[in-house]
Amino acid sequence: MSARRGGSKTEKGAESPARGRLGVWVVGLGGGLATTMVCGARMIARGLASNNGLVTSTPAFSHLEVADLGDLVFGGHDIRPVSLHASALEIHRDTGTIPFEPLEAIRADLDAVDENLRLGTVVNCGAAVTALAGKAAKRRRESLADTLDGITRDLEEFRDLHGLRDVVVVNLASTEPRLEPQKDHQSIAGFRRLVAEDRRTAVRASSLYAWAAISLGFPFLNFTPSNAALLPAHLKLAAKKGVPVMGNDGKTGETLVKSALAPMFKYRHLEVMSWQGYNILGDRDGQVLADERNKASKVETKDGVLNRILGYPLHTHVAIDYVPSLSDLKTAWDFIHFRGFLDYKMSLQFTWQGCDAILAAPIVLDMVRLADYAHRSGEEGLMTQLACFFKRPLGVDEHDLHFQFHHLMDYLAARRGAN
Amino acid sequence: MSARRGGSKTEKGAESPARGRLGVWVVGLGGGLATTMVCGARMIARGLASNNGLVTSTPAFSHLEVADLGDLVFGGHDIRPVSLHASALEIHRDTGTIPFEPLEAIRADLDAVDENLRLGTVVNCGAAVTALAGKAAKRRRESLADTLDGITRDLEEFRDLHGLRDVVVVNLASTEPRLEPQKDHQSIAGFRRLVAEDRRTAVRASSLYAWAAISLGFPFLNFTPSNAALLPAHLKLAAKKGVPVMGNDGKTGETLVKSALAPMFKYRHLEVMSWQGYNILGDRDGQVLADERNKASKVETKDGVLNRILGYPLHTHVAIDYVPSLSDLKTAWDFIHFRGFLDYKMSLQFTWQGCDAILAAPIVLDMVRLADYAHRSGEEGLMTQLACFFKRPLGVDEHDLHFQFHHLMDYLAARRGAN
Amino acid sequence: MSARRGGSKTEKGAESPARGRLGVWVVGLGGGLATTMVCGARMIARGLASNNGLVTSTPAFSHLEVADLGDLVFGGHDIRPVSLHASALEIHRDTGTIPFEPLEAIRADLDAVDENLRLGTVVNCGAAVTALAGKAAKRRRESLADTLDGITRDLEEFRDLHGLRDVVVVNLASTEPRLEPQKDHQSIAGFRRLVAEDRRTAVRASSLYAWAAISLGFPFLNFTPSNAALLPAHLKLAAKKGVPVMGNDGKTGETLVKSALAPMFKYRHLEVMSWQGYNILGDRDGQVLADERNKASKVETKDGVLNRILGYPLHTHVAIDYVPSLSDLKTAWDFIHFRGFLDYKMSLQFTWQGCDAILAAPIVLDMVRLADYAHRSGEEGLMTQLACFFKRPLGVDEHDLHFQFHHLMDYLAARRGAN
Amino acid sequence: MSARRGGSKTEKGAESPARGRLGVWVVGLGGGLATTMVCGARMIARGLASNNGLVTSTPAFSHLEVADLGDLVFGGHDIRPVSLHASALEIHRDTGTIPFEPLEAIRADLDAVDENLRLGTVVNCGAAVTALAGKAAKRRRESLADTLDGITRDLEEFRDLHGLRDVVVVNLASTEPRLEPQKDHQSIAGFRRLVAEDRRTAVRASSLYAWAAISLGFPFLNFTPSNAALLPAHLKLAAKKGVPVMGNDGKTGETLVKSALAPMFKYRHLEVMSWQGYNILGDRDGQVLADERNKASKVETKDGVLNRILGYPLHTHVAIDYVPSLSDLKTAWDFIHFRGFLDYKMSLQFTWQGCDAILAAPIVLDMVRLADYAHRSGEEGLMTQLACFFKRPLGVDEHDLHFQFHHLMDYLAARRGAN
Repeated sequence: MSARRGGSKTEKGAESPARGRLGVWVVGLGGGLATTMVCGARMIARGLASNNGLVTSTPAFSHLEVADLGDLVFGGHDIRPVSLHASALEIHRDTGTIPFEPLEAIRADLDAVDENLRLGTVVNCGAAVTALAGKAAKRRRESLADTLDGITRDLEEFRDLHGLRDVVVVNLASTEPRLEPQKDHQSIAGFRRLVAEDRRTAVRASSLYAWAAISLGFPFLNFTPSNAALLPAHLKLAAKKGVPVMGNDGKTGETLVKSALAPMFKYRHLEVMSWQGYNILGDRDGQVLADERNKASKVETKDGVLNRILGYPLHTHVAIDYVPSLSDLKTAWDFIHFRGFLDYKMSLQFTWQGCDAILAAPIVLDMVRLADYAHRSGEEGLMTQLACFFKRPLGVDEHDLHFQFHHLMDYLAARRGAN
Repeated sequence: MSARRGGSKTEKGAESPARGRLGVWVVGLGGGLATTMVCGARMIARGLASNNGLVTSTPAFSHLEVADLGDLVFGGHDIRPVSLHASALEIHRDTGTIPFEPLEAIRADLDAVDENLRLGTVVNCGAAVTALAGKAAKRRRESLADTLDGITRDLEEFRDLHGLRDVVVVNLASTEPRLEPQKDHQSIAGFRRLVAEDRRTAVRASSLYAWAAISLGFPFLNFTPSNAALLPAHLKLAAKKGVPVMGNDGKTGETLVKSALAPMFKYRHLEVMSWQGYNILGDRDGQVLADERNKASKVETKDGVLNRILGYPLHTHVAIDYVPSLSDLKTAWDFIHFRGFLDYKMSLQFTWQGCDAILAAPIVLDMVRLADYAHRSGEEGLMTQLACFFKRPLGVDEHDLHFQFHHLMDYLAARRGAN
Repeated sequence: MSARRGGSKTEKGAESPARGRLGVWVVGLGGGLATTMVCGARMIARGLASNNGLVTSTPAFSHLEVADLGDLVFGGHDIRPVSLHASALEIHRDTGTIPFEPLEAIRADLDAVDENLRLGTVVNCGAAVTALAGKAAKRRRESLADTLDGITRDLEEFRDLHGLRDVVVVNLASTEPRLEPQKDHQSIAGFRRLVAEDRRTAVRASSLYAWAAISLGFPFLNFTPSNAALLPAHLKLAAKKGVPVMGNDGKTGETLVKSALAPMFKYRHLEVMSWQGYNILGDRDGQVLADERNKASKVETKDGVLNRILGYPLHTHVAIDYVPSLSDLKTAWDFIHFRGFLDYKMSLQFTWQGCDAILAAPIVLDMVRLADYAHRSGEEGLMTQLACFFKRPLGVDEHDLHFQFHHLMDYLAARRGAN
Repeated sequence: MSARRGGSKTEKGAESPARGRLGVWVVGLGGGLATTMVCGARMIARGLASNNGLVTSTPAFSHLEVADLGDLVFGGHDIRPVSLHASALEIHRDTGTIPFEPLEAIRADLDAVDENLRLGTVVNCGAAVTALAGKAAKRRRESLADTLDGITRDLEEFRDLHGLRDVVVVNLASTEPRLEPQKDHQSIAGFRRLVAEDRRTAVRASSLYAWAAISLGFPFLNFTPSNAALLPAHLKLAAKKGVPVMGNDGKTGETLVKSALAPMFKYRHLEVMSWQGYNILGDRDGQVLADERNKASKVETKDGVLNRILGYPLHTHVAIDYVPSLSDLKTAWDFIHFRGFLDYKMSLQFTWQGCDAILAAPIVLDMVRLADYAHRSGEEGLMTQLACFFKRPLGVDEHDLHFQFHHLMDYLAARRGAN
């Protein structure tokens, strides 16, 4: 079916607004997800892989002019030195998700991306993240203002060097501890004050990346649960600058299934008494999440979905445990205890065995394409049409996956009319 | 939450069109599903059980005047002598789904229903069903015309004896072998000819029950997969008589989950390569399904759902195996093998442990209420608004559970306007 | 097969040493496990239930003269007022494990056992247990010496009142926090000193129950993980008094499966990399285990099994989470990640759905019978032949279930020769 | 732990009887299992893989002089042209079980094995196997006597060409339909008569391979369920020739788990009411098993295990379904329904996700080593010490995995004494 191999999806005239090189700047470029995404984009562009997993490559999107994968230019920040090829080879050996033979075929492409890596910041990301950072990142003890300037310069340089028509900035870095909201997070002036006064505990790395991106007029996507990336001040800046942004926390595995299944119980007036979710995984994210402070951000976004869909409080539990032997092959077991007619208790269990990076990579590419489209179309602020891709979609109360997806379909239908 | 105990759902004025005794005539009155349904309706009416599982008792339906459970009068056909209390006690001992203490409290109610039982027919139902029948049913070797007359008289007598304002007829009998469509099935005159000429192999028991019901102007629901119940001739008769009807095959367990989950894969462009479903159960239905001819009807309705939702052919398999120790506690294991980005293969498994009768009973009551409402509202022919309750909804191509449910919600919204 | 109904297992002459009334004193008499055990023993004695689950009722034990269930007289301590019938009815309503009709038939038997209840102690059992205690138990602020005397008097009175030939004391109370070993725990004199000096934090309730039992020459079984019940001082006292004792922590569910399955991996040189175990349950034990201090005792005994069977360190994790809707129907999901030829990774998952009380009750009865037999045979100290019934069998390093079971079979074979 | 990389396991003197080149002749050399085995043996010999999965490489076997993997010389028959490297590359691409980088390192080794391939026979193997055969195999319409002569010559040539001290012949071909026993299968003379008279329907391909091997004094192992390989006549010939042989049907997955778990229920007097096993797989074996006649052989060996371990009849079912997308990654779901105290019903489910070839390959190598050892030790006839490796061990009634494994340990202990 969908296994049509690669190449350009549609014939676009040279004058198409979707043509031209589009930058994709990744915070966390050396991570497993970024590596998988870059490899996949290059393999598909070279006809070495199918476009499975890419929603924007399905017929429903055919009337939307989205960027060709071959036109994407990748770069990014990381807190450690990066060789994408080495990272990809490690993934191949660990899980086999990146196939060996096409990997060798795109080696030069990956080496070129390595050239676009810049050293990132770990400011206030928590001990677990800092422990992962290379020496250079740990030494970098600048003021917040200097860090922000540095990030801004990196982004400008990337755009200028490659002659990019736009840059979409995506946060794929490890989960930060939750940032408690403060008054200065509410306004553009407030955030600027925090930076100017170097109040480091009120700002995290993700806050700076997002600020730099939006200030430059670049669309920003927060694929992580880190709440510091898109504070109210950021949203106000996005509105002012006319930039589309969206977050938080990509919905790729257990929560995706939850948000697809939970409505079924509602449709049948089956009372869900308990929904226990156990996630086990072994990659670097798992290590960071083993730190309780970082885990709290994650569990919070996973756990709220059910109450909101079902409309009543229920007993829920979400565990995320680090099991090194699994690498990135996350396994989740969910046990759903529900009660029906005559209050009889029944159960549904599921075991999800997916690879987080494989599930996440294509929807990051989808959102890059849709953010680029939105920017070209003059949209600004929260891209609520992307709600179906997020565990905690900003500005959206609806967690039912089906509603969310049809919201995106409605957006497409409206655009079809507009074109 | 929903465990509010019993009683009447809304305050209705004495003049409400939903008031007055409503007959529910069940084909297969002595079976586990019918027993569970009658027990539940009485327990809820007496405030001994919550209304869990009843969709029509949720707030979304509050503006629709549906019949009180306490106003339902039950009767029906069976091919064996029936004591609903004895049947309920057997279920209590087997699976515990019907609780002992409330069962004792409604004993007199059940004994009263036993009075409304009439001997049914097994004409052309296959050897497996005939083997279950009591002696009297097996002896009954009348012509088709005589059988049809007998059924008609039973229904009229039931209505008249209890002063019922209407009767909804529901087929809950064991699955019959599939009936191959013939020319005479296409028209009212054709069906009448089959009966008149006593062409027994062209008609099954369910064809006669449905014909009698519709002829009398009674709404008819086919909760079984038996395709002989609602032939084209029946639909034409329903249109002519102004009677609402619907079928086939109640969607209660594994197929329900399938139709809720499958859209998720479509939303993410994840290619489902294989979907294997294994059902094990041990009740009388399981015995009948152990006969390959009867099973074929069932598997056909379960298996088509996926292709239609996903839009492409995939490897599917549905097994139904008889495991006596399980009684009615059906267990299903589904293995879903899918492929995502970079063609990487992943899997989702689920184990569904439900009780078929507990899942089916409330939606039969829901449909009785909605069929009564439709009849009072002057609707006729296929009640496509009930598609979400069927594995193979007649007149509906959509198998996505979410679409189906929202179709029902749209129907409700339209009725709200109409009231 | 085994569903032969009740009654006396073997014809014993009036002079058999196994005849005569045998006391079974239960610490925690009002709990779910004790209730299930007493109900089951009475139902089997009255021919109302099969002897399924009772190992001592299988042919392998036929040459051993064990006590008839009908000769057992039950009594015990609890920290709350107890009505066994009320407790049994609650269990029936919650989980259906105790059937209604036979329960009504043994109601008088249960009421008679209620007469043998005495108020227990909560000394130093942790806040979670104390919270469960009734007012009387909480008020009971005696010295340790007085408490010990009280327990002793209760036991003597029970024996004398019913003319019992012996009393087996069984600890089925909620898990206590782990007791750190001290010097005074090592000797009989030391323990006596702790009591005399009223050093309450060095002693827990279970320490006193066991001490009273052994002092009176009554066999003692610790079915709980509480390590305070059988301290080195207790073992020395048991040797001195000629009393058989055994513990700790009955092996009934997930750990039973673990100890049966883990050897398979060893036999095939399959390297188990990770073994994750998730237990969910909702009974009173679950509530107590929600207190981290009490849980620690439990997890420790569950978690050590694998390393010892496999012979190398591996990544293990045992979670026990409280899910109220499950009551006593514990569900466990284990994920076993292993590596074989070419270091290829594979997995085995299992879901165990059992009822703890149903699994534990018969082996408590089995051990009561075997402890009685051992006492009559003049055995003293640790009954290592019972290792297969414990998660952490005292005096036994072997955790392979098969070795443990064959150790019991060897014991039987040796007794057969001795008789 | 066991991941010690390759090389020779023990230092053996040059004069060790285990030294010298040992032939391994594989019927079905081009299949997935044979490919995996040859690749693994070469990778371990070259230090490119651990010896995980090899039982004979564990300390328990250290006193037994078994052949070094580096001394094994592989050859065999197949019914299609074979390139082991191409076959291994296909497996790598399908399932990733054979890793890419070490595969390239042993490419020359594999090419050398290709030289030792000879064209096999499909005589009377059933239509499903014949369909898989290459043209040359299908054309080969010789008499049985000529085929047997050809096989014999191939084996002699292999031994002579490589100067092998012995050859172990292993049947890894696809499952044949069951052969109904006849009088002439009972004696050496009878079998010779069948061949001489060219009675093709009374003999299958595996009968001829085994006969040729045993006649030449070569140990023979039947890893398949095909019952035609070791008929009574073969066993008599093996006794006469002083040759050790063993079969049938390697125990690698679901049945292995069954035989490890079933005893647990016996130990606790838990009555297993039903044990349903569903196997899904997608390799060439799966295709052959889709032919009902070939499947019957397989299911029969899988299904008898439980009755024999538990000692009473129970409801069992074993399904094997072909799911192409799984390739060789067999998945099995087992549902075990059991009844304990108070006849309460509980369940255990497991999902086994293994790779058949990865599980089977090392135990084939183990058995080659142990058959070679047995031959050198002067043992003849059935090697019952290998029972733990077979689903249907010839000459052994015991199916409890633990008994079987300890039987092997006893054999080792006896040999330790003998050395």
